[in-house]
Amino acid sequence: MIAVLKQGTTDQQQENLISWFKDMGLDVHISKGEFHTILGLIGDTTKVDIGLLESLSIIESVKRISEPFKNANRKFHTEDSVIDVNGVKIGAGNFQIIAGPCSVESHDQIIEIAKRVQASGATILRGGAFKPRTSPYDFQGLRGDGIELLLEAKKVTGLPLISEIMAINDLDLFEDVDIIQVGARNMQNFDLLRELGKTDKIILIKRGLANTMKELLMSTEYIMAGGNENVILCERGIRTFETYTRNTLDLSAVPMLHELSHLPVIVDPSHATGLSRLVEPMALAATAAGADGLMIEVHNDPEKALCDGAQSLTPDQFDTVARKVRKIREAIAE
Amino acid sequence: MIAVLKQGTTDQQQENLISWFKDMGLDVHISKGEFHTILGLIGDTTKVDIGLLESLSIIESVKRISEPFKNANRKFHTEDSVIDVNGVKIGAGNFQIIAGPCSVESHDQIIEIAKRVQASGATILRGGAFKPRTSPYDFQGLRGDGIELLLEAKKVTGLPLISEIMAINDLDLFEDVDIIQVGARNMQNFDLLRELGKTDKIILIKRGLANTMKELLMSTEYIMAGGNENVILCERGIRTFETYTRNTLDLSAVPMLHELSHLPVIVDPSHATGLSRLVEPMALAATAAGADGLMIEVHNDPEKALCDGAQSLTPDQFDTVARKVRKIREAIAE
Amino acid sequence: MIAVLKQGTTDQQQENLISWFKDMGLDVHISKGEFHTILGLIGDTTKVDIGLLESLSIIESVKRISEPFKNANRKFHTEDSVIDVNGVKIGAGNFQIIAGPCSVESHDQIIEIAKRVQASGATILRGGAFKPRTSPYDFQGLRGDGIELLLEAKKVTGLPLISEIMAINDLDLFEDVDIIQVGARNMQNFDLLRELGKTDKIILIKRGLANTMKELLMSTEYIMAGGNENVILCERGIRTFETYTRNTLDLSAVPMLHELSHLPVIVDPSHATGLSRLVEPMALAATAAGADGLMIEVHNDPEKALCDGAQSLTPDQFDTVARKVRKIREAIAE
Amino acid sequence: MIAVLKQGTTDQQQENLISWFKDMGLDVHISKGEFHTILGLIGDTTKVDIGLLESLSIIESVKRISEPFKNANRKFHTEDSVIDVNGVKIGAGNFQIIAGPCSVESHDQIIEIAKRVQASGATILRGGAFKPRTSPYDFQGLRGDGIELLLEAKKVTGLPLISEIMAINDLDLFEDVDIIQVGARNMQNFDLLRELGKTDKIILIKRGLANTMKELLMSTEYIMAGGNENVILCERGIRTFETYTRNTLDLSAVPMLHELSHLPVIVDPSHATGLSRLVEPMALAATAAGADGLMIEVHNDPEKALCDGAQSLTPDQFDTVARKVRKIREAIAE
Repeated sequence: MIAVLKQGTTDQQQENLISWFKDMGLDVHISKGEFHTILGLIGDTTKVDIGLLESLSIIESVKRISEPFKNANRKFHTEDSVIDVNGVKIGAGNFQIIAGPCSVESHDQIIEIAKRVQASGATILRGGAFKPRTSPYDFQGLRGDGIELLLEAKKVTGLPLISEIMAINDLDLFEDVDIIQVGARNMQNFDLLRELGKTDKIILIKRGLANTMKELLMSTEYIMAGGNENVILCERGIRTFETYTRNTLDLSAVPMLHELSHLPVIVDPSHATGLSRLVEPMALAATAAGADGLMIEVHNDPEKALCDGAQSLTPDQFDTVARKVRKIREAIAE
Repeated sequence: MIAVLKQGTTDQQQENLISWFKDMGLDVHISKGEFHTILGLIGDTTKVDIGLLESLSIIESVKRISEPFKNANRKFHTEDSVIDVNGVKIGAGNFQIIAGPCSVESHDQIIEIAKRVQASGATILRGGAFKPRTSPYDFQGLRGDGIELLLEAKKVTGLPLISEIMAINDLDLFEDVDIIQVGARNMQNFDLLRELGKTDKIILIKRGLANTMKELLMSTEYIMAGGNENVILCERGIRTFETYTRNTLDLSAVPMLHELSHLPVIVDPSHATGLSRLVEPMALAATAAGADGLMIEVHNDPEKALCDGAQSLTPDQFDTVARKVRKIREAIAE
Repeated sequence: MIAVLKQGTTDQQQENLISWFKDMGLDVHISKGEFHTILGLIGDTTKVDIGLLESLSIIESVKRISEPFKNANRKFHTEDSVIDVNGVKIGAGNFQIIAGPCSVESHDQIIEIAKRVQASGATILRGGAFKPRTSPYDFQGLRGDGIELLLEAKKVTGLPLISEIMAINDLDLFEDVDIIQVGARNMQNFDLLRELGKTDKIILIKRGLANTMKELLMSTEYIMAGGNENVILCERGIRTFETYTRNTLDLSAVPMLHELSHLPVIVDPSHATGLSRLVEPMALAATAAGADGLMIEVHNDPEKALCDGAQSLTPDQFDTVARKVRKIREAIAE
Repeated sequence: MIAVLKQGTTDQQQENLISWFKDMGLDVHISKGEFHTILGLIGDTTKVDIGLLESLSIIESVKRISEPFKNANRKFHTEDSVIDVNGVKIGAGNFQIIAGPCSVESHDQIIEIAKRVQASGATILRGGAFKPRTSPYDFQGLRGDGIELLLEAKKVTGLPLISEIMAINDLDLFEDVDIIQVGARNMQNFDLLRELGKTDKIILIKRGLANTMKELLMSTEYIMAGGNENVILCERGIRTFETYTRNTLDLSAVPMLHELSHLPVIVDPSHATGLSRLVEPMALAATAAGADGLMIEVHNDPEKALCDGAQSLTPDQFDTVARKVRKIREAIAE
């Protein structure tokens, strides 16, 4: 970490600052310029509160050299992490397709979709029970009943499950759900993250709509600092000025997150674009970019889906996408 | 609401759609063009799920004519709402300054600041006990102890309190806190909003970092639909590409929210800019733009503030700002 | 186009408006609701000035049903356009790789790079002579001399050329340049676009840093309305809040622009990310997404490149990328 | 400027780099950490090409300590600049209101508006002759004829003129126009800026729709580096996700630009919001924030304005705004 002192900082002020750093166990190198003095801080600077430092009147600016996230940082954990989802592995070359409906609607719906996507190669079943909706008047999900229906589908197909949590008080309902999803709007719900860090559940955390990769990794840190290292990162599109697509899928996040972190990175092309006809090209592109998996919405009757039907594939369309994805996997493997 | 049908929609499909609308109690006007047919839906369209409608294969696009928020909508409540905070009124010409430290740190700190800001004209005391921080390694607030200290300051000065909640499980702690703040990062924590809607507490809701005014008002709807109409809106800066300031204060939100809604609108110039030297000009500008109040960070020793010291005013600086704000209020009142 | 009238519009005002529309040759369908009256305009609404219409005091809002761009619109030209670059075809299944240095620096540099990228499969040579730089103190390109050096490389290798224009007064210099590039910062330099529309040169137009696809297609319309239909669209990354990458490559723009327009769409992964190590994954992803070509920066000595060296591949790295791109092409072709 | 070297940089590489810096006349201070070595560069680093430096394989990151703009920088010119517009002064406490129609439409229109705004206190007349429009099918301005009409209005009223230039080839037409405006879309049209820097005209440069203040000041540098120091900065709203307002007026840019630069800063509340009813509150807020002037659209018949009528005030509305602005000026002067 580098701290640049303002012109006019007195020797006494500089000395006070340096001893404050030394109290934190840091070494300090001083570089005196014509206009500015630069302090280089050496040691574990993760816990230096950069906001506090910047607030000091003698500080011109502060720059981190090392990233402020630790547990997710590839520097301290050079090998890819592999997350084992009830026998289904993600990461380090293990690629999985998660598929299922945006919302669980009925027994027949979820069982049918689960069987169809399994037949096409999906290895994990997704289904929303708790739905974050902008309007309180829109369908909010079947909640506990939705989880029940998912568990029935798991019993029938053997597919591990992923479903979104919205409040920590619902945690008990997720006991047999294999992956708990933290949605984009809760990416900085720090209380929820902290509580999930105390569990041993696998957590899939989606990047927030206007959040940076660093913020995603800092949120991941809330989970991992609690001792839970079972985390999967998910790129699902960010908010931009574009209006033809609902969000803008940031596929450069795939190689960039791989560089920054050892955690697996999967891509959700359905929510990103909001348009079912863009799911195939974006699924193929995500695969080519090196994603560790995909999460795709599939509905047996997209037109009657209770939410987000516009972005769901039919089981037949999904079958085609899954087949082409395997071709891309082969092409990049060679 | 207007629904535009795609070219090639059959008469049967169109009829089915129309009877679906009629089942919802809506009237439908049909306008047939060369390329498109347009359906005008008449009646209470608030509960039409626009996502579902857009997902139908025969729909080209959908446009709302009326806003999807109801309780906060000025159309159905033309007079300004006045929120009574334990005798201190906000809205409809009642202007208040909320002031206090970003974080409550100690008994002496909060008592001293409370007395100083009260002497300068602040009528409500702010203080953070639960702090949302990007990094789990940064100071997270004194939590329950912080609320205790705030209550002591209330006892000494008589000032009503505002403090931020981060999880509904902490609600009991806020029994004697007069205004519960929902922070920018929780603006779309719908579970929290829904639970707050079941209480009778005054809720100040801050606009999210990358959220629109419509989204703010839809989140407000989660609170109000539950029966709690005691809501104050707060503009605190949005995320833009600018880096010299932390966020970009959107002052046009003040007159625009006043046009859209009957709820009071206050402005937080401290978090918006992140720079104490910009607080004065932005406080004056917000006042000139017609805000119903200001929320300003004040610290007796900003350099030692445990968070966000860079944006805090000293009590003396606050005194100057409060005095100038009153001058602007007089200038626009004439 | 749909125009929604405000409550309180008088019959006389409505009649005046309708006759104004009829004077423009439009038919008008009227749909009267409880609160609003909706006018559906039928006919060629491309030339209705939407800003002017929205400004009328009786108008609540206006919505276009048809897109405001015509010449580039796939609705009126359903087959993919093929652009013939001196015998090298782009579009409708013809895929080309454009490669070369960010800036032309010397005779030896451009000749060597041209030969190397040609050997690896590039079919068009890029090279910057006029460089748009944020700072006037940064290297601005060799300008006319740079064009001369490019022409020498064309003579040696036979590769067609692409280079960026910054001012219409330099047009003469581009006589033997095969494709004229309009850079992101000039995407809305309407005077430049209008003048290029009067030429018969092939124009590659890059999407602006904060521009939507609709704005890109409207800028394209400036060129095409002048009679020049030789236009190639280029996605090169848009500005977002992300800082690890320079810009965010929007690959969903590839299928979306293909849906909206018949023009070829190529992708520039070098400028988008600003990082040479992300060029390969993004080039593969763009190919998988269905791009009609790629534009990649290659430098024989990236560390000494006079601009943007950080994003340039070495000729060896480019050779690998080109080979893998061909594999992806095969995978999606089957 | 600080350069952080990557781990594994050899002594030889480090020495080479240091002698490269020394060749540029810079002194180098070395600070060796456990993981990184930091070089502090001392001297005039304005001309170090930061992109080139970042591209070197041994460089981890680079940080400027001093701003890269020089001529506009307050550090080297501590007093406010005053721009003298034909006797009308802007800056250093001199506050002016520029008013007039978006587009010049006719002799009678411009003369009438000019007289009305002059009577209400405007001291400079604005009027668009060359109009940048997103669509080539929208009204593009009267061009040369529009300038002629402006000059007639100047003759009648004595008001100095401001009008927008779009191409350097039109420069001759602006001989008697007192201020040349560079619009938001041309803020990074570097060729135009460079040419304007060779003239002695007063240039008002508007901040681009998605540009930062630093980029605005770097563009200003293109003009000033050519020797033309007569520059006025203009905040006119930036692009955000908000849709109720056309753009988001960034009023914190007023005090921030004043801190960074000695140039006058004016605010255009008309284009920023796109809504005439928001012009008054935003004009008052801009004044309270310390702007050196305002630029406001006024039209004698806003409903028939050929462009941007929705944001124009009537002369009577303008009279009210101008009067209230004077009250705010008095309130902040005391």
